[in-house]
Parts: sequence; structure tokens; C-alpha cells
Amino acid sequence: MSKVGIIGLGHVGSDIAYTLCTKGQVDELVLIDKNKEKVIAEYLELTDSMMMTEVKTTILLNEYRHLNDADIIVISVGSQSIDNEDRVSELNDNKQAVKEIIPQVVSSGFKGIFLVITNPCDVITTLVHRESGFPAYRVIGTGTSLDTNRMKRIVGEKLGVSGQSINGYVLGEHGESQFVAWSTVMVGTQKLLDVVSLSEDELEEMKEATRLGGWEIHQRKSWTSYGIASTTSRLIQSILKDEKKIYPLSIYQEKDNIHIGYPAVLGKRGIVKALSLDLTKKEDLLFRQSVEQVTQYLEQ
Amino acid sequence: MSKVGIIGLGHVGSDIAYTLCTKGQVDELVLIDKNKEKVIAEYLELTDSMMMTEVKTTILLNEYRHLNDADIIVISVGSQSIDNEDRVSELNDNKQAVKEIIPQVVSSGFKGIFLVITNPCDVITTLVHRESGFPAYRVIGTGTSLDTNRMKRIVGEKLGVSGQSINGYVLGEHGESQFVAWSTVMVGTQKLLDVVSLSEDELEEMKEATRLGGWEIHQRKSWTSYGIASTTSRLIQSILKDEKKIYPLSIYQEKDNIHIGYPAVLGKRGIVKALSLDLTKKEDLLFRQSVEQVTQYLEQ
Amino acid sequence: MSKVGIIGLGHVGSDIAYTLCTKGQVDELVLIDKNKEKVIAEYLELTDSMMMTEVKTTILLNEYRHLNDADIIVISVGSQSIDNEDRVSELNDNKQAVKEIIPQVVSSGFKGIFLVITNPCDVITTLVHRESGFPAYRVIGTGTSLDTNRMKRIVGEKLGVSGQSINGYVLGEHGESQFVAWSTVMVGTQKLLDVVSLSEDELEEMKEATRLGGWEIHQRKSWTSYGIASTTSRLIQSILKDEKKIYPLSIYQEKDNIHIGYPAVLGKRGIVKALSLDLTKKEDLLFRQSVEQVTQYLEQ
Amino acid sequence: MSKVGIIGLGHVGSDIAYTLCTKGQVDELVLIDKNKEKVIAEYLELTDSMMMTEVKTTILLNEYRHLNDADIIVISVGSQSIDNEDRVSELNDNKQAVKEIIPQVVSSGFKGIFLVITNPCDVITTLVHRESGFPAYRVIGTGTSLDTNRMKRIVGEKLGVSGQSINGYVLGEHGESQFVAWSTVMVGTQKLLDVVSLSEDELEEMKEATRLGGWEIHQRKSWTSYGIASTTSRLIQSILKDEKKIYPLSIYQEKDNIHIGYPAVLGKRGIVKALSLDLTKKEDLLFRQSVEQVTQYLEQ
Repeated sequence: MSKVGIIGLGHVGSDIAYTLCTKGQVDELVLIDKNKEKVIAEYLELTDSMMMTEVKTTILLNEYRHLNDADIIVISVGSQSIDNEDRVSELNDNKQAVKEIIPQVVSSGFKGIFLVITNPCDVITTLVHRESGFPAYRVIGTGTSLDTNRMKRIVGEKLGVSGQSINGYVLGEHGESQFVAWSTVMVGTQKLLDVVSLSEDELEEMKEATRLGGWEIHQRKSWTSYGIASTTSRLIQSILKDEKKIYPLSIYQEKDNIHIGYPAVLGKRGIVKALSLDLTKKEDLLFRQSVEQVTQYLEQ
Repeated sequence: MSKVGIIGLGHVGSDIAYTLCTKGQVDELVLIDKNKEKVIAEYLELTDSMMMTEVKTTILLNEYRHLNDADIIVISVGSQSIDNEDRVSELNDNKQAVKEIIPQVVSSGFKGIFLVITNPCDVITTLVHRESGFPAYRVIGTGTSLDTNRMKRIVGEKLGVSGQSINGYVLGEHGESQFVAWSTVMVGTQKLLDVVSLSEDELEEMKEATRLGGWEIHQRKSWTSYGIASTTSRLIQSILKDEKKIYPLSIYQEKDNIHIGYPAVLGKRGIVKALSLDLTKKEDLLFRQSVEQVTQYLEQ
Repeated sequence: MSKVGIIGLGHVGSDIAYTLCTKGQVDELVLIDKNKEKVIAEYLELTDSMMMTEVKTTILLNEYRHLNDADIIVISVGSQSIDNEDRVSELNDNKQAVKEIIPQVVSSGFKGIFLVITNPCDVITTLVHRESGFPAYRVIGTGTSLDTNRMKRIVGEKLGVSGQSINGYVLGEHGESQFVAWSTVMVGTQKLLDVVSLSEDELEEMKEATRLGGWEIHQRKSWTSYGIASTTSRLIQSILKDEKKIYPLSIYQEKDNIHIGYPAVLGKRGIVKALSLDLTKKEDLLFRQSVEQVTQYLEQ
Repeated sequence: MSKVGIIGLGHVGSDIAYTLCTKGQVDELVLIDKNKEKVIAEYLELTDSMMMTEVKTTILLNEYRHLNDADIIVISVGSQSIDNEDRVSELNDNKQAVKEIIPQVVSSGFKGIFLVITNPCDVITTLVHRESGFPAYRVIGTGTSLDTNRMKRIVGEKLGVSGQSINGYVLGEHGESQFVAWSTVMVGTQKLLDVVSLSEDELEEMKEATRLGGWEIHQRKSWTSYGIASTTSRLIQSILKDEKKIYPLSIYQEKDNIHIGYPAVLGKRGIVKALSLDLTKKEDLLFRQSVEQVTQYLEQ
């Protein structure tokens, strides 16, 4: 039986639960939120929603002890408003939430994988790592996975090709200091920069469209959720099915002792291994700057 | 190519769009809302959400002319707050919205099926019928389909059987005057009342749990959406694939000249035919009372 | 992790494996066949087939010890030619196969559910029960589940309604002596015999079309497999997800000490409980005759 | 409505039909085979198989006129035995079949896309192109798409990474003269040859394992079908949904006036555009040799 816990049932946590139930991806789901009425509401909604589907998920409520044998726990606590341009504004609230939640999870006997969405994602993932005492490969943030999807879509639209046939990574912080590592961006098996002539302005424009993707949504509907919910459900499947696919995720950088966005192989174990990219000097510098940014938020 | 329009992108309309995209049920989706920023936000969200799935839906925005060749238009305009115990409180606003929207849809040349969710569902469905001038079989409300699902779940839980192996109908208004037609409720192929000994109190309790299902959710999270979104996506599939399955829906009652919840065969044509139930006298009376209730709201 | 074993990789066993992989229904699949080359071929085929899907199943080969922690074992050994009008012609071969296989499965430490397809299904299911020493609720045959599907389709086509909105059961032997229990057949929530006027000839014709459904296919392509593969994949899901849906299955009749087709609630435990139908006298008689037929085959 | 025709219901054609029905990918399916009994058998099987699924496909039989408004026609005629090491042995039979079939398809008024599986795939695709008089972008062979999947799986297994995170192409003939274009093979966004140290022997071994993938299956079960059925269902989806993904396919080479395996963008139009790879000299030579091989078969 596959079992996933979701802690934090705001728009994102709830939409992840709905996505997992709609796709029938997990056998058991544990829903936890400080607002216990919200948890009951979502339980009722999700149960209703499965009445006409071919799939079934058993839903357990609000007890940390149910997390004991979970495969994955999604951390999606915290206010939606932080998913804007300045994702760190509510850092302190979310730091506090992590300090309350993680010990309870650890006490449950949980031995699975933390998948952290709460923003600022890299900072919170680092804190979950430190607070839990878990090995680094079992603490993962969604990091730049959604930003990378946006970049692929934007590049694909420019070339008239499916974004799913574009490869490449947005690296660094899931936030202001992120960057598109253009040296990694491929159209099929060919380097984008080799096959298409793009000006610096065009690259900058695509980078900005990527970086502001969430903000464009947030300012129009006050939150974002479908994009991250769908991405998270995919990552959950990769872990549960031990797929060993490569994704850019917020993973541990031993050298800097923080988690930050970088590609890795994801499987049942968690991070199976990080890739070792051959970035350009400029990209290396941007990555260092992003590391420093995350480190700075941590020290605040 | 299958094409569905959604007019009204509140929680319900948006979650229907997300469900259809997640399941890959339609080729083209037309999103329309007075709040054009919200439409753009949902477009961006939905496009992001499909970057990691096997399915693809093309999304068109905000132009009534795109509805010209749609198969189905979902009407989900109106405030969420009406989905509470007193679903008619905002009747006037929603009546007004229908009067603005339907002529624009008709002008587009649309020749498909209206699927109405906006509450009070039966009243609004009746108005869409009158305003559009469409034949009655092409104007359908979700009616008591979700209430029926809730009843099946509640009965199933009581018996330790999947709600999907329970059959039967909640009839009448999607609102206060609805009732469970117990004479129709089956466990597998056997009448519930024949095989299980249930007191009047137990039946009343299950009826009330069904009737208040939406309200229980609404008071805890301020809106409801996953249940109705999932139900609507199923009905859409039944129409697009010409499944000819039986559902309780808000359908036209010639005798009373209104739409109200009653079982019918649903297919590509819309309502293929209504069933003709053999209700008990008590149920007949409850149905008449519900018809009067809807008629009264219409005349207000 | 969900784990299913399939013993016997003829057309049926292989198509079940392909269906489970295509739908991503199980995490691990154990394939066993005397013809070890065939097992390797199917392993390669199935692995190829998953390269372009969103789902992943790990496949293990040919060792009974892999069945140790399986949830379900499908028994699909035996020649295809028995799925014809005279399904008992190869009874002896298949009895022999069961005697060889079951002790090896039991020795593996398997504690799950046997799902038997090999024909004559009721006879072989009974033998698996006896040979394994398992409690009866953990030994199940597909029985008349596929015949029932055919009956629903045939009735639905006659009425212009989806076969999925028809309910009812084909009871007894999955073979010659099976019968449609017309008293159980429902259109929505109404008895077929109450709402539609059908002559004895029409009923007989539909019964014969049902009974000969497999034979009609077999004589045209020399085997049958998609129908039973799809049905079996559904039953597997019902068990793995503990759905507690009602299906007609080959289940244990204590009174007669055999397995034969009768409706029951299916869940993670296996048979959760058998229904208790209120058949007509004629149907009771037909059921007794079918029981005698199966008993006779067993005693041969 | 999406509509796909399948001409030739051997193992491959039938398994494609079953896959499409199981996944609910198309609204209408037209099945055609010289053996009309086989067509009826598959119709019955497929209809049975959909009785317990959430999806529905309408199936039409044996009339070329039903192909009039089809989106895609799959050509899967011909004996299974040709899918062995010497895929050209039955060239003449299949050439003859094409000459009989294509004019009937053209007469139906069909304006969609031919998707050719019959072996030798590149030769037959070229003949379908010539015989139909269709523009080249609407005549496509599955070519080396399945071989490419096998290569990805084999490379992925060697590296402990999902084959779906490997990119790259097998080019040329779907047959003896095919080759892995190692310069195109990527692990994530990095060239395989840059990040992993592989000897010439190891590369040769992986190439041979790829090339002989079908043969390994064929000699063990006498045919192959699940791999190609699954691949074909994916290509069909890419066309129907206008995905514009990149696949290696048997596409038209103007210079040589034949169809042969090369990557291209696939969408509703058919081939949207071919890529322009920067192959090594050795790979260019291998491609020329493969072109010559196909040309030679054509001239036989």
C-alpha cells in the first residue's frame, strides 16, 4: 500500500490531495492541518469526488501517528501570500511552523521522504533537513521543478515544439535569484543555443517570463496551486514507483550545507544521486549567488 | 475534436477546468469570466499543470465566438456563497447573469448542450432553457447528481459496501426540498428496504446527512468544489462519448414547465429520455412539493 | 507496494499482464510459466510497452519465492482451447497443473488471494481451494463476471441504454449450465421485467447470446482474452484498493462444498461477504442444476 | 470526435485496438481485415473489455467508407513472421497488400494521416506514400521509434536511470541497417559520451541489444506486439492532440525519395517538420548505407 501525508491544507495542499485522488495515485492519504474544520471539509469533498471515478483512496485525518508508515510527507504549510515576488516575507512564520511540525512527524516513527513545497522552498527544505535529522537524500524540496516546466513551455512555444520535447534546467533558488541554465537547454537532443539564433534580449525575456510565472498567476488570482499540485503529484509518483527520473529539485549541497535547486535522480530512496553539470562560468557564478541568497535567508 | 466551454471561473468552474485537463477529457477548452485577469491566471495555471502529464488540452480565452462549435457549455457563474442551506439567496444576481450571458452564447451559433451548475440549479437551468430557446433535451442541470452520490456513499458506509454498488436517486430540487426516494435505493440488485432493517430515524438521518452534505463542507471551507467538479467531469464524458448512462439530473418536466431533478439517459444528444419511476405515494407528494418550491422561486 | 503474480502466460495471462502495466495498476508483477522463454519474451514486451507511458511496473520472473508477499495470484494456466462450448474437455490437464502449482505457491509463504481464471473455472477454483488449504474467502474464481458483463451489454443494447446502467447477474457455472437470473436484472433501479415487455423467446435469445459470447469469439479467433483480461484487471483493482464492490464471482458454497458463480462483496480480505439473493423458484432450480454439474465435473 | 482506422488485425493491429480502447484514446475505431470473422471476434472482445472501464469507444467494422473522415489510419497488414531478423522476406506479399488497400482508402475520401507499421516499415511507408499520392507529411512509419525506446531502456538500465530520462535516436531503417546515433544520446541534458566512459565494445553491445530487441522477443513467442502497440498508441495521441513532440519516425527524405527513420516534430498535420541533426561523419555514413539498403529493397 502506498501512503502519503499532506501537512498544510491551503490551496496547494488541498489541490495536491484532489489531484492524487483524481488520478488514483495513492492507496492512503493522511491529511493534517491546524484548522481541523478545513481537514473535515476536504475529507468530505474528496470522498464525494471519488464517487464517480474508477479509483479509490482511503483518507485518514489529523493524527500524526498515521504518518508512522507513510512513504512520503508533503509539507505545504504556510500562507499563500508568500508565493509572490518576495517569497521570503513570511519566512519567520513558516520557520516557526516547521519547528512545531517536524518533531511531531519524527516522533510518529516516520521513515519516509519529506517533499517540501512551503516557501521560501529552499530555506524551508534546509530547515526540515536540520530539524528532522534525516539523511539529506530523504529531504527534498520541489525547488525549481515548476519553474523548469515553465521554462520548457515558454521555449517550446517560441519554437513551435511541445515543451515536453524541450529539456534543461532552471537552477538555484525557487525565488528571485533563480536562473535558466541556458547551456543545459535542449531541443530534442540538440543544444538550443546551437540550433536557434536567439539574442541576449530574447533569452533574458524568456528567463524573466519563467521567473515571474508564479507571480503573473498570483497577482491575478491571489494564489497559485494547479501548477504546483500537478508537478508534486508527478514527483510523488516518481518516488512511489521508483522511477529514477531526473528532475531539478531542491537537494542538499554538502559544500554549502543548504538545499537548493539542482538536477538529481529521484526514486524510492529519495535522491538516488545528484547530477554533475558542466555549467558555464557565468552560470556557475549565478548558482553561487543563489546559494548565498538562500544562506542569507537562513541566517536571518 | 471535443470542445467544452466553461462560463464562470469561480472555485467550481476552475476546478472543473483543472479536472478536465488532468484527465485529458477534452481537446479544447474555452474559458470565460467577467474577471478577465482570473481567466488569464487560470490559463497559465492549467498550462503549467499539463507540462508533466501525458495529456493535452488546448485552451481558448474569453471570446464567445469560440463557443460556436463547442459540444457542451458549463454554466458556473455566480457567487459561491449561494451553495449553502439557503441556495436561493442570491437568486436575483444569478438570474441577471443568465440574462446577460445566454444571448451572447446563442449569438455565437452554439448548437450543443448547456450543463448548468449555478445555484439554485433547477431555477437557473429553467431560465437557461427559456432564455436560450433551445429544445429542452439540450439544457441540463447537474441537479441532484451530487446529492445522489452523497446518498450512495452514506448508505454504502452504513452497509460496509462500496457506494458505487449502491443505486438509487435523490429527487427534486438541488436544495432544501430534495428527498431520497428510498423506494429506488438498491444494494446491488436488491431493494435496500427489503434486505436491511432500517428505522424511520435511520432513514431520516441518512436523508439529512445527504441534504446537508454540501452545507457541511461549505461552513468549514466557505465553498464546495471538488465534489461537483468531479461529478461534472463525469457527466461531460457521458455526453461526449455518447455513453447513454442513467443519472439523476435537472431535466425538463413538460407538465410543470420547469427543470428539476429526475433520472434520465444521458448521451451525445443531451437527454436521450427520462425514466418513468414507480414512486410511492409519499415520494410522489414530496416530488410535487419540490416542483412547487422551484416554481415559486421562479415566480419571485 | 502492490504485488500481483500471474501463473500461466498464455493469451489470457499475458493480456492481463499487459493491461495491468498499461493502466499502472500494480507496483510489482511476478510472471511464471513452464515455458521460460515465453516469460522472458513477455518481460521484454512489457518493458518495451512501458517506455512511453506515465506508469511503471517492476517485473520479476519465474521464481515462486517472489510470490511470498504478493497480494494476489492469478491462476491462468492451461490451454486456450478449453474456452469453448465444452469447457471441461481439458479438465484433467488443468487439474494436474493445479496439483503441481499450488503446493509451490503455498511453500512460498504466500498469504494473499487466489484469483482463478483457468477453465472450467468453478472446478479449478474449487480444486485450488482444496489443494491450498486456504480459507474460502481467499480463493476466488472470475466465474460468471465476464458473462454478466456480456448480459449487461446485450440488455443495454436492446434498450438503448449503456450496459453500465444495467445491473443483474449471470449465476452458476462459468459454462454450459449458467443462467441469467432475470429476477435480478435492473435498468437503473427498476426491474427489467417490470418496465419492459419481453417475450420468453426474447429472454431466451439474450440468455443464449450471453452464454455463447465466449464461443462466438473463440470460433472466430481461436482464443479469447481481451474481455477476461479487462475484467480481471478490474477485479484486481477492487481487491487492492479494498473497494468492497459487488460482483458475481466463483465463490465458496458451504452447503455444497464447491465454488460457483454468485454475487459477493469483494475487498482486500477477498470475499467480504456473499449476498443472499431472493431468487425465483425456477432460478433456484437452475442454480441447483448448475451446482450439480460442477460437482459432477469434480468427481470425474 | 476522434476517429482512427486500423487495417490489418493480426496481433499488432488487434493489440493497438485493445490499447486504444483501454486508454479511451479515441471516440471511434474502424477495424478492417480480409478475415472478416477475425474482425467480428475483435469487435466482440473489445466491446466486452470496455464493460468495466470508465471509457468508451464506438467500433465500426470492415467498410472502407467509414474511413472517410478518420483522423489516422494505421496500416498493420501482413504476416507476423516478417518481424524477425530478416524483415524483408515477405516484402512481396506486403507490397501486394498495399497496392490493394491504398486505392480503396483513397477512394473513401480519407484526408488524414497514414501511420504505417507493416514491415519492412520504411519500404512499405514509401510505397504507401507513392500509392496514395498523399503529401509526404501525411504518410508516416513507426520506423525506429520502438528501437529508440529499446535503446533508451538499455542505456537507462546501464546507468541506473529511468530510460525516460535518456534521450537520443536510433536512425535509419527499422531493420538490419539501423544504428544508434551515439552523438545524439543524452542523459538528462548531458551527452552520454561526455559523462560516462564507455568502451567501443560496450557501445556495440548496447547497439546490438537494441537492434535485436524485437528478434529476442519474436524467437521466444513467435510474434511481437505489446511494445509496438503501446508505442503506436502514444504516436496516435500525439497526432490527435497536436502535441508537437519530437519522435524518430519513418519520414520522407526528399533527396532520396524514400521514407526512413529520422527525428521529426509530430502533430495534427502529421510531420510538422524534420529536425536537422549534426551527426558525426561515421553516423552520416551509416545513415547513407541505411538509405541505400531501403532503396535496394524498393527496387527489388
